[in-house]
Amino acid sequence: MDADFLKNLLIPARTKIVMLVLDGLGGLPPLPGGKTELETAQTPNLDALAQRSALGLTIPVAPGITPGSGPGHLALFGFDPLRYEIGRGAMEALGVDFELGPDDLAARGNFCTIDPGGLIVDRRAGRLCTSASQELINRLSLIKLPEADIFICPVKEHRFAFILRASGLHDALSETDPQVTGVPPLPLLALDPTAEKSARLVNQFLLQARDLLADCSPANMILLRGFARLPLLPTFQERYGLNAAAIAINGMYRGVARLVGMQVLNPAGTTLEDEFNLLHQYWDEFDFFYLHVKKTDTCGESGDFNGKVKAIEEVDAQISALLALQPDVIIVCGDHSSPAVLKSHSWHPVPLLLYSPYVRSDGNAEFGEHACSHGSLGTIPAIQVMPLALANALRIAKYGA
Amino acid sequence: MDADFLKNLLIPARTKIVMLVLDGLGGLPPLPGGKTELETAQTPNLDALAQRSALGLTIPVAPGITPGSGPGHLALFGFDPLRYEIGRGAMEALGVDFELGPDDLAARGNFCTIDPGGLIVDRRAGRLCTSASQELINRLSLIKLPEADIFICPVKEHRFAFILRASGLHDALSETDPQVTGVPPLPLLALDPTAEKSARLVNQFLLQARDLLADCSPANMILLRGFARLPLLPTFQERYGLNAAAIAINGMYRGVARLVGMQVLNPAGTTLEDEFNLLHQYWDEFDFFYLHVKKTDTCGESGDFNGKVKAIEEVDAQISALLALQPDVIIVCGDHSSPAVLKSHSWHPVPLLLYSPYVRSDGNAEFGEHACSHGSLGTIPAIQVMPLALANALRIAKYGA
Repeated sequence: MDADFLKNLLIPARTKIVMLVLDGLGGLPPLPGGKTELETAQTPNLDALAQRSALGLTIPVAPGITPGSGPGHLALFGFDPLRYEIGRGAMEALGVDFELGPDDLAARGNFCTIDPGGLIVDRRAGRLCTSASQELINRLSLIKLPEADIFICPVKEHRFAFILRASGLHDALSETDPQVTGVPPLPLLALDPTAEKSARLVNQFLLQARDLLADCSPANMILLRGFARLPLLPTFQERYGLNAAAIAINGMYRGVARLVGMQVLNPAGTTLEDEFNLLHQYWDEFDFFYLHVKKTDTCGESGDFNGKVKAIEEVDAQISALLALQPDVIIVCGDHSSPAVLKSHSWHPVPLLLYSPYVRSDGNAEFGEHACSHGSLGTIPAIQVMPLALANALRIAKYGA
Repeated sequence: MDADFLKNLLIPARTKIVMLVLDGLGGLPPLPGGKTELETAQTPNLDALAQRSALGLTIPVAPGITPGSGPGHLALFGFDPLRYEIGRGAMEALGVDFELGPDDLAARGNFCTIDPGGLIVDRRAGRLCTSASQELINRLSLIKLPEADIFICPVKEHRFAFILRASGLHDALSETDPQVTGVPPLPLLALDPTAEKSARLVNQFLLQARDLLADCSPANMILLRGFARLPLLPTFQERYGLNAAAIAINGMYRGVARLVGMQVLNPAGTTLEDEFNLLHQYWDEFDFFYLHVKKTDTCGESGDFNGKVKAIEEVDAQISALLALQPDVIIVCGDHSSPAVLKSHSWHPVPLLLYSPYVRSDGNAEFGEHACSHGSLGTIPAIQVMPLALANALRIAKYGA
């Protein structure tokens, strides 16, 4: 089903949809035959909602493929993650909440140490602390190019996001990080004639950076990799007729939401309560709310099974307040699985709950991987979630006579 | 998901995958409402493994389509059987363990009887016995062509495999078997200009064959059909980074495995024990093992329900020895269904068991069609099996940031 097909069937409605994304929601039991994080968690409110909902599992990208957060979210938002790719540099810039625009070319940068002969001796400059990194970034910020604006944002320790803003930039560029020590940084090359301007500008910047950092220690040079521009995506308004808001703490998720045209709201603090408060505060102003929960993934990736269980229980505690708003459609889902036992993202299908007054409810008062694997929605590509949400919101007209 | 996408995500690992293919595994109950062959079989070891595994059903080609062994296997190996076709002549040559190469053009041949006027009176020459056929093949082997090598391999009774080896051969050729008697063999024609050399060479051979067989009885002529070259497939090494071995008794399966770049091992005998012994013997040398069990299909095709049950039980008896090798991933599957009640291959989805330490096990200690139809893997295209196996073997990196 292509996007235009759906677009032509859209009908206006006053219904509201909430998509609650628990990052890395899917899990595995700590021992074979046991319960996953979600199954272990005490979730009376989600379980009660599950009883009135249809359950299923989502495949974010393709069977067996472990998605990053970018592809995982694009799929939930209804965009084929194999067609729309958000490169690593762009993700890095989004991750520090940089408002990446269509004229921007972003890269992952890091400070490194080179010897007097120009050979790299430490690719991470001893993982210098973030404040030391900030001082060096202040120095690099003095660099001016006649044809472009430059933005450098600290990430963590030796890492930063590098953004070049000018017209006509392209991301078909090689990387300067050779991935090994004992050799000089690689020359930056245009991999396609369209990227020649970009290569010239970045190389001008690199030359000046080298001079400016020459007397610093241990960080006396920089490496750039993962050059990327943002893909151009239709907005939620254009594609779904939805006036959409995003509630997320972390920059990367705020950035992906901005990319699909959501208005990104600013929580007062960094807690789950702060996020749900924002939902209440802006309830009357939007048709669609994306609310992102990060902690489930953070715990999964660090192998903290119990922490992930607790993070899920914290979400459960917010469900009553969510229901009090009487959303027409509620989706509880994840952008990918992050089982604590794997300490990483994984390929496993992700639990999905779809509530509306019009679902055929499974009548199963349990929200967990096994219940979802027997759910009536089946195991479906994640890009099918948005059409199902719109249908349940009575926002799609009949096709054909 | 195209092949290059997966290829670009491969990461090296030391994990080992075993794919146990029970040919024609899927079945039907002898009477409606009864148990299938697999459900009837006493399989304590497979059932115990099922409890720790994820179950599902595979669709080899497409819903409602009954696959031959070629397409059934290609799908399990991850190759779209609608894109890669192994023609009948090539299958015949592979079936007699002929090492068909990229310069080879193969056909199904058979001896026939023609009358003095050249009209076919018996398309099978009275189904002459295999030894008589061999004598005639020896005679035909005297034929030499200046531009090509000729190989003729007995199959059974009146049937043989015919292989022409030369550069620039193509398989767009008509057939000489008119499928009826009372008419002469059809002239062999090139159906495309690229096949003109092939037509000329085969016609030279046919003329000489007619002369050499003129005084024989009842087999005094040959018919050729199903001309085919091998499709060019990427190897398991190229596509999956897997050093793969095949353990199979019958030529056709050995040939299909060779086609995808597996090293074909030679069992000491023709029993299941011989095949599993080979698995143990070569365990340290390969990443991936394909082990083929023929008897399940032979019994299914001959309508021998109890024989198929017994064949499955014989496989079950080998499972402990398989588990002792501690494979990281085990797949138990079939290339298609062969229900004894149909005495043929069928379109029914095929039971699938996927074991690894990282599957979400269904916890159902039963390996059978019904258990599989409720399995968490769902009913999936067979070409998804390899990506799932690679994911469970931790051989696929994350996609996107």
